[in-house]
Amino acid sequence: MTYDLWYWDGIPGRGEFVRLALEAAGIDYRERGRASGGGSADALVEDMQSPRKHPPFAPPYLVADGETIGQTANILFFLGEKHQLAPKDLAGRLWVNQLQLTLADLVAEAHDVHHPIAASLYYEDQQEEAKRRAKSFREERIPKFLGYFENVLKEQGRWLAGGETWSYADLSLFHVVDGLAYAFPVTMSKQSRRLSKVMALHARVGALPNVSAYLQSDRRLAFGEGIFRHYPELDG
Amino acid sequence: MTYDLWYWDGIPGRGEFVRLALEAAGIDYRERGRASGGGSADALVEDMQSPRKHPPFAPPYLVADGETIGQTANILFFLGEKHQLAPKDLAGRLWVNQLQLTLADLVAEAHDVHHPIAASLYYEDQQEEAKRRAKSFREERIPKFLGYFENVLKEQGRWLAGGETWSYADLSLFHVVDGLAYAFPVTMSKQSRRLSKVMALHARVGALPNVSAYLQSDRRLAFGEGIFRHYPELDG
Repeated sequence: MTYDLWYWDGIPGRGEFVRLALEAAGIDYRERGRASGGGSADALVEDMQSPRKHPPFAPPYLVADGETIGQTANILFFLGEKHQLAPKDLAGRLWVNQLQLTLADLVAEAHDVHHPIAASLYYEDQQEEAKRRAKSFREERIPKFLGYFENVLKEQGRWLAGGETWSYADLSLFHVVDGLAYAFPVTMSKQSRRLSKVMALHARVGALPNVSAYLQSDRRLAFGEGIFRHYPELDG
Repeated sequence: MTYDLWYWDGIPGRGEFVRLALEAAGIDYRERGRASGGGSADALVEDMQSPRKHPPFAPPYLVADGETIGQTANILFFLGEKHQLAPKDLAGRLWVNQLQLTLADLVAEAHDVHHPIAASLYYEDQQEEAKRRAKSFREERIPKFLGYFENVLKEQGRWLAGGETWSYADLSLFHVVDGLAYAFPVTMSKQSRRLSKVMALHARVGALPNVSAYLQSDRRLAFGEGIFRHYPELDG
């Protein structure tokens, strides 16, 4: 079976967390919202409006066997169970879900740094507020979140859920670190000194054969006008 | 077995979503962070620092049989499976989780209305920014989120996951509506006219015998300095 992944074209966005899991596990999927994947943004807008039993509030969503599954962490939970991208036991699956939700909180904050007033306004119309929010994000939130993951890895070892192999939460932490390094290079260069385990995990995920092949393919979109944005004035 | 619920004292907060599920289902629990429940805020701070296999990033967290489970939606997913507070089939469980995560997004936005710059600053130090953010929240976000749930109920019937009985997502929507009505009474009074199904669900949940008894008990804390805050200047 081939999954249909629906997400906006042009940016990695939240769809990237799902895409990374599909790519890392070698699972077949189609990009229904992306021109380069054979889909289109128009098709996405139209599909969002079609009536269905379980409508998504927003992309990304995955369609599998006629079922629509929305919310990034929920899609990953499903893929994790179905394709063994998380531990098998309940405690392990809940732990990986918990980590994913903590990353989702960080992602939402990373977005709101450049859009602290409204997603519907341009950055330029909330730039002063963004500068204020960025200070707290750089000095308090990034250290707190990434310090947490550093501590988790101290306890768990090579992977966030322990054991000998990655889970989807490891892929997501990889992408968050990637995004933060793109958006806040100065901050992350300083922070990375006290995040040796997080940075080692980032390198480890990037070197997984499927992930490495994906990152070099044209299926991997560059960062730009999405969640992670590089505005030097927000990087302190 | 008695669950240990750890959350800050003094406010309903995110702990309330867990508390409502425990109360509605008549599940035994102890309030370990709350003086009135036999716990204390000091005990919470101390417990957060104790080493454990699966540390939470932040409260609320639940301790059951020596396992710690963090992140509100994750705790509810666990309780939903263990105590039948969600449909039994996979598609139904994922749907309820998806709805819960959508409510979590709304809750995060409701918080950031009064703290658009930093959670670590006082409201008074970000009041002007809050006024700007509140406009978008009132005019765009509340209608979009609650309109979505109205449409879901049009499709599903009395309860968000269909069927003849409530799931934990229904309890959470109840609490979100309660919180929004407290924080934005003028806005919600206008909005409620086009939200007949959401408002009917709110009444239906509030009338469940266990929920009604809980709401009248001293275990239910009043809104105040938490996620949902009433500042008339933010209500338009």
